[in-house]
Amino acid sequence: MSYKPISEIGEFGLIERLSKITAPSAKKRPELLEGIGDDCAVWQLGESEVQVVTTDLLTEHVHFDLLTTPMHHLGSKAISVNVSDICAMNAFPDYALISIAVPPKMPVEMVEELYRGIEHAASAYGLAIAGGDTSSSPSGLFISVSMTGRTTPEQLALRKGAALGDLICVTGTLGGSTAGLHLLQRERATMIEQMRNNEPYNKEVMAELQEYAEAIRCHLLPEARIDIIDFFSEEGIVPTAMIDISDGLVADLGHLCRRSGVGAHIDESRIPVLPEARAVAEEFQQDAFDWALTGGEDYQLLFTLPKSQYDLVAAHRDITVIGEITEKEEGMLLTDIFGMTIDMAEMKRGFDHFAG
Amino acid sequence: MSYKPISEIGEFGLIERLSKITAPSAKKRPELLEGIGDDCAVWQLGESEVQVVTTDLLTEHVHFDLLTTPMHHLGSKAISVNVSDICAMNAFPDYALISIAVPPKMPVEMVEELYRGIEHAASAYGLAIAGGDTSSSPSGLFISVSMTGRTTPEQLALRKGAALGDLICVTGTLGGSTAGLHLLQRERATMIEQMRNNEPYNKEVMAELQEYAEAIRCHLLPEARIDIIDFFSEEGIVPTAMIDISDGLVADLGHLCRRSGVGAHIDESRIPVLPEARAVAEEFQQDAFDWALTGGEDYQLLFTLPKSQYDLVAAHRDITVIGEITEKEEGMLLTDIFGMTIDMAEMKRGFDHFAG
Repeated sequence: MSYKPISEIGEFGLIERLSKITAPSAKKRPELLEGIGDDCAVWQLGESEVQVVTTDLLTEHVHFDLLTTPMHHLGSKAISVNVSDICAMNAFPDYALISIAVPPKMPVEMVEELYRGIEHAASAYGLAIAGGDTSSSPSGLFISVSMTGRTTPEQLALRKGAALGDLICVTGTLGGSTAGLHLLQRERATMIEQMRNNEPYNKEVMAELQEYAEAIRCHLLPEARIDIIDFFSEEGIVPTAMIDISDGLVADLGHLCRRSGVGAHIDESRIPVLPEARAVAEEFQQDAFDWALTGGEDYQLLFTLPKSQYDLVAAHRDITVIGEITEKEEGMLLTDIFGMTIDMAEMKRGFDHFAG
Repeated sequence: MSYKPISEIGEFGLIERLSKITAPSAKKRPELLEGIGDDCAVWQLGESEVQVVTTDLLTEHVHFDLLTTPMHHLGSKAISVNVSDICAMNAFPDYALISIAVPPKMPVEMVEELYRGIEHAASAYGLAIAGGDTSSSPSGLFISVSMTGRTTPEQLALRKGAALGDLICVTGTLGGSTAGLHLLQRERATMIEQMRNNEPYNKEVMAELQEYAEAIRCHLLPEARIDIIDFFSEEGIVPTAMIDISDGLVADLGHLCRRSGVGAHIDESRIPVLPEARAVAEEFQQDAFDWALTGGEDYQLLFTLPKSQYDLVAAHRDITVIGEITEKEEGMLLTDIFGMTIDMAEMKRGFDHFAG
């Protein structure tokens, strides 16, 4: 009998195989409305409320690099990415539990700085840090955040629910996180080179980072769009489907379409690319549109709305309509800036942690 | 400025410093009844229910060793230790979210076996696996389990609440897990020695493990005492305080007394030591009482009850009264089998993950 390494089937292949194993226990709970397959697990809490719960495990050298990530920023981001999952359900966050595995030689002061970032973000989003677990780690820092949130059954938004003709909307701008990552990776390479040569730290690199502060901020300090959930709540808007953009616009739109059983047609010229990302992409001789479409980690919200509700979002300066939901058979199409129509299934998909 | 490595202040020192940082966000939520400092975080859910939530991060080489831990057992134990925390609140488990960080070269079949153990235990305890996260790990396997449970405000049991004169009770037997760990560590050393010498696997070691199957099972497959919570529920028993024994009887009784602001006096001769642990201890020339008192990982429940309720538990064959709650000023005392009274504060405390 031969064994298959996980890298051969990838992250989504693994999740599919594991979720089959745990399906029976989930099926026994009729209150469990959504298990594996959405941004959060969702269950009924009494008649008038649903609870949404999410968890994320951040791994050093996979999700972050301590050479270019200040601990305060890392703590804040660990909270924001989970709040973003809660927001993707059209819900508000309540409580978070934080577990960390830390190398015993790590200074206490560094861990405290991480927790100051955690607390800072928690306070900004109005959620409480309610507990957690600490353990030592033989190598590398691991941060696991679990977060609960609440909404009503009427306001709950899932990945499924998008219908033919619905508008496809996105919040904020895209591509900033990937631009920031490119800058930080270049800085990291320079730092390592300088350390190897025993050279003093090159301030020119730092100056360049200052120039692109917004892109760097997009990567190190993304903000969950709880302001949009507030706006939806005030205006009585309930998206027919919603997801947060963590894997990249194309990949996440793919998740939404697959779960909704629909197709999509988006217009590249309408995609809101962060202006600074264009400048950075030029410097790296890359395509800012590609970063916006497949880059990931922008933590904006992607949602669908009936056309009849266009007026409700049209006035919001931070929401852009980028396309329309089509029949499943039409697949996922993109009309590019030259008017060519491209099948998004052919494009590079989101990041796979297990890719070889 | 000099930095302090975590190993200098230990796990409890670290938790104390971190919980100070996150106190403000927790204080803003009046529904949060217990934050850091109990087996679970506890918050009010409407008027008639409280939710309890716990999280545990299990780290390879720290909490488990894959050389002597079958994946199915590991999955089951990851669930049981969290259910045990839920039981310690006198609550029943509802949902669990599982996050894993796995080396990409690990066979998919191993991860599936882990999840079969997870699902098997979830099903036995009547809880549902509702979601999770997967990530690659540069080195070692990490398993993070978050679990929710529910009870009523009237039935909730905390670490605080033990009162002068209350009986101190413990479920099941103690020392088994430490006995099992000793056997497994010896087996591991033998296996490594044989691998180094290219020798075939020594079946005599295996035969010896069979002989002590119960101790091994206590370590690899502990069961959360949900049967006791069922019993409490049927009999209308609400412990004045409760904790599960994960750090060791002395350490966990210490947590309970500190939170309750009381002292304790226990009688060594009444402590229910697993008979097999005595045999194993003899073989290792160690003291089975010491394993029962300070060994940890037995996942039994330690709770207090008013003396007037003695009759309710006296008939239960798996509950033993081991002592009595005293004034805080009297400290934590143990009368040993020779009639000598010992201050438990002088005894070796529970396991510290960060100890140097």
